[in-house]
Amino acid sequence: MPDKEGVLRDLVVGNRILANENILDAYGHISVRNPANPEHYFLSCSRSPELVQRNDIMEFRLDGTPIGGDKRTPYLERFIHGAVYERNPETSAVVHSHAEEILPYTISSESLIPVIHSAGIIGPVAPVWDIAEKFGDTTLLVINIEQGRDLAIELGNNRVVLMRGHGFASAGRSISEVVRVSIMLARNARVLTTALQFGHRVQALTAGEVSLRQKMRPDGREFYRAWEYWATRAGCSDML
Amino acid sequence: MPDKEGVLRDLVVGNRILANENILDAYGHISVRNPANPEHYFLSCSRSPELVQRNDIMEFRLDGTPIGGDKRTPYLERFIHGAVYERNPETSAVVHSHAEEILPYTISSESLIPVIHSAGIIGPVAPVWDIAEKFGDTTLLVINIEQGRDLAIELGNNRVVLMRGHGFASAGRSISEVVRVSIMLARNARVLTTALQFGHRVQALTAGEVSLRQKMRPDGREFYRAWEYWATRAGCSDML
Amino acid sequence: MPDKEGVLRDLVVGNRILANENILDAYGHISVRNPANPEHYFLSCSRSPELVQRNDIMEFRLDGTPIGGDKRTPYLERFIHGAVYERNPETSAVVHSHAEEILPYTISSESLIPVIHSAGIIGPVAPVWDIAEKFGDTTLLVINIEQGRDLAIELGNNRVVLMRGHGFASAGRSISEVVRVSIMLARNARVLTTALQFGHRVQALTAGEVSLRQKMRPDGREFYRAWEYWATRAGCSDML
Amino acid sequence: MPDKEGVLRDLVVGNRILANENILDAYGHISVRNPANPEHYFLSCSRSPELVQRNDIMEFRLDGTPIGGDKRTPYLERFIHGAVYERNPETSAVVHSHAEEILPYTISSESLIPVIHSAGIIGPVAPVWDIAEKFGDTTLLVINIEQGRDLAIELGNNRVVLMRGHGFASAGRSISEVVRVSIMLARNARVLTTALQFGHRVQALTAGEVSLRQKMRPDGREFYRAWEYWATRAGCSDML
Repeated sequence: MPDKEGVLRDLVVGNRILANENILDAYGHISVRNPANPEHYFLSCSRSPELVQRNDIMEFRLDGTPIGGDKRTPYLERFIHGAVYERNPETSAVVHSHAEEILPYTISSESLIPVIHSAGIIGPVAPVWDIAEKFGDTTLLVINIEQGRDLAIELGNNRVVLMRGHGFASAGRSISEVVRVSIMLARNARVLTTALQFGHRVQALTAGEVSLRQKMRPDGREFYRAWEYWATRAGCSDML
Repeated sequence: MPDKEGVLRDLVVGNRILANENILDAYGHISVRNPANPEHYFLSCSRSPELVQRNDIMEFRLDGTPIGGDKRTPYLERFIHGAVYERNPETSAVVHSHAEEILPYTISSESLIPVIHSAGIIGPVAPVWDIAEKFGDTTLLVINIEQGRDLAIELGNNRVVLMRGHGFASAGRSISEVVRVSIMLARNARVLTTALQFGHRVQALTAGEVSLRQKMRPDGREFYRAWEYWATRAGCSDML
Repeated sequence: MPDKEGVLRDLVVGNRILANENILDAYGHISVRNPANPEHYFLSCSRSPELVQRNDIMEFRLDGTPIGGDKRTPYLERFIHGAVYERNPETSAVVHSHAEEILPYTISSESLIPVIHSAGIIGPVAPVWDIAEKFGDTTLLVINIEQGRDLAIELGNNRVVLMRGHGFASAGRSISEVVRVSIMLARNARVLTTALQFGHRVQALTAGEVSLRQKMRPDGREFYRAWEYWATRAGCSDML
Repeated sequence: MPDKEGVLRDLVVGNRILANENILDAYGHISVRNPANPEHYFLSCSRSPELVQRNDIMEFRLDGTPIGGDKRTPYLERFIHGAVYERNPETSAVVHSHAEEILPYTISSESLIPVIHSAGIIGPVAPVWDIAEKFGDTTLLVINIEQGRDLAIELGNNRVVLMRGHGFASAGRSISEVVRVSIMLARNARVLTTALQFGHRVQALTAGEVSLRQKMRPDGREFYRAWEYWATRAGCSDML
């Protein structure tokens, strides 16, 4: 079992990487399931991810209740995380993001399909969840566990679910995997957007290609190279 | 009533944030109504917003006349600010910007509608004002109070009015709110521009969603998080 | 008459500004006519504009011959500058650039027309010169005075001429004016490109608006504000 | 014959330039043929190009076998390099990249043709190789010499071959030439993508123009200026 401090250090690094790669800004967050207790997860208190430090990390029950009477202000949308952990036992890390590149795909019938090899990791499809279908007019924020659970149903066994007019939630087997999924999702969106502009048919990855990409070991040397690179760019290579 | 020095410090921070977020460059400006005298407002002398300091702030009557015989060169387009304060008593802060992302919507019949949750704050519509309709051929600059008043009529009770071939003016209940409106307007424009390219129908926020977003308290923790983040990126977190 | 050292200092600042604003990279250049001798002009030896210093400046006759037996390697395309000075007596400064934003307009029948107020300075039209029309297959570089003169004919009394598959040449009454023309040309191109994408009619500045913008004094406070801003961003505010 | 240490120093500079110019990120690589033994080539061990140093360079046989029992982890896709050297005796340096700007052209029938003068160096055409045609469903990575050889056939005598959903491989007569080819390929893609959006015919370079551009000496002063500029931007001008 991974040691808790190592996991929390990776969580801080994940926050910094996602901020530096423009997946998160003042908003959005990344969490990790407690490796010692699958009914709990770790997530920063309400701070911009770029500024998150070890001591900002809080622990939550899956329903979003802080552990140990922690009185700090939590993120309003923490329910996304708990609901995904609750539904998918194999998920160990979750990201919620408003990355601009993917937003057009949440307000259009155009599908965000994987077209580049590095995005095979996101899986064959990214369904779109519209909070209004079940909850009517809202601020579009996921502010209770019922809304989180409805989102988790739409996510299903996929790695990514888009949220209409809002952003996406992604799920991974580790912090580094969910970071990779999130960065590659945005990259794939940029490439697809440009290719669509040409007005010709766009060639997606085949089902077989996606499957082979998803089977690549997320803890191998090739994947670690990107983690090291992103951390270095984010100025926290000393935390590796 | 907020203290004057606190307001002026926030005004300097607002200048720096808007410059750093590419809403202002050498041109454009942000003002705040004098909390002790609603017939006056504060605005820098003619300097690039990125370079504005506390001592650059001048005080003006709503008609654009400097207070106290201040001989420094004012911004040519200060009349935008006074005219908006004159018409909208609830407006406490005004931005005028030439942000590139919104300019295409000022020279086309395409409407800049809110499509992402964070842009609900701008309201359901951003009307376009064409200075030529009433004033014929000009430099497109708003250089007297009559032109400012005509612009303020088009703004009406909206948060934003686009200016043909020129930029936009935005109004808020506080400095941090008008900064937020301005940044989210540009972000919304980027997302909408990409979504339009797909050639399908684009799903806007509903009227109910916009209304709920506009009712969110501009001084809450969630909103402050962005102010802190933007100020940190702009290198003036020490002024918070 | 402006003093020579002041002019050369401005020329260095102009190099740095245009490099920092992405109008020049390793290639492209800016020159100034010798205020004491209209048959000569000043231009750096063959160096990237970002790296140009006072001692790199060479002096040339309008036909491109270096003055004083200067043996340093000159820019291959210096003939653009001399030919424009030769044809247009009122031109005091010239830029040649490969700015990416304008290149699409040099290989398409789409016209680069002024649509934003700050681009009125470029004039009503930017004609496109194709070196192949008179000189057939070349490297597309302007490497002798005959090619320069053919380009200058196409420029005529305009401020800008586009060069097919290559870039643009711009002319101004001062260094700061030609820098402004060049930066605003690229900005206008970005805005126009996006507006064209919407598929609706794009509203250009009227002839009267362009005329009024072109009559604005290039040495006024409003224009100097941008020069100061650009120089500060380029790290050479100490040279102002 | 160039001295080995000079070649390896240039290889490190090439890594840094390509990383800084966004042609490489955590992935992609640049190699050089051993000038003293054309059956060998030099390539970093598995590290992000931005972080590569002199001591990271390994030596390989053309079939991808490390020389001297070097036990460090090599790049998975090193076979691209050896296969190109094997087929094209005049090739001295090879780049493999996933540059985003070119990816849309690998998943669409739109051709990446040279439209700007600086891109004449890439040649008249960039064919697209689809690994699936011969090898069926894969991870899209080139992980053995057979796949590399199939790619090299598609490259033929061109300077660039695009790889479906993956990136490109480019070949040059020197490190600085292949770096230039790679940077200009991405620039040309950006310009072409925008020009295509206008919906009019796009004017490509003529065959004669491409031929004249390709004949320009890659070791002349004009080309060195860009190498110096890129190295300075990448923070390694001290290695020139």
